[in-house]
Amino acid sequence: QLPGWRLESGKLACEYRFTSYRAAIDFVNAVAALAEAQDHHPELLVGHDRCVVRWSTHSANGLTMNDFACAAMTDAAFSRT
Amino acid sequence: QLPGWRLESGKLACEYRFTSYRAAIDFVNAVAALAEAQDHHPELLVGHDRCVVRWSTHSANGLTMNDFACAAMTDAAFSRT
Repeated sequence: QLPGWRLESGKLACEYRFTSYRAAIDFVNAVAALAEAQDHHPELLVGHDRCVVRWSTHSANGLTMNDFACAAMTDAAFSRT
Repeated sequence: QLPGWRLESGKLACEYRFTSYRAAIDFVNAVAALAEAQDHHPELLVGHDRCVVRWSTHSANGLTMNDFACAAMTDAAFSRT
């Protein structure tokens, strides 16, 4: 179960809200660190007070278990912000 | 003159390419620093090896001179990466 996540054009996507641009950028850096650790890199859309994270596996042309694992890790990173 | 920039849904947009996700994230942080200094915050779309930057002015419901100035500063930040 990954509440808040949805399928968006074949990608696993979630939008997070923040109280400032700085907080959104801090979250981007946390997700980047996890992406590098996993060697798996999400698409990120950063707006004034939000960040949309989209996981997918290019080589599989879709989603794998790894995307769901990374989605859970993204939630964990958010809960630490 | 801002080569590489285009109008995209009323926003001033440019796509930058990088040799790694890390390099793209470093650029995001450089743009975030400039955004905070200017108190003007672009939309950022980060992919594996690229970052699209989109400037617009919400309060003007379009573009202002400030967006063009920030676009030029974004190019300068990229040239420093």
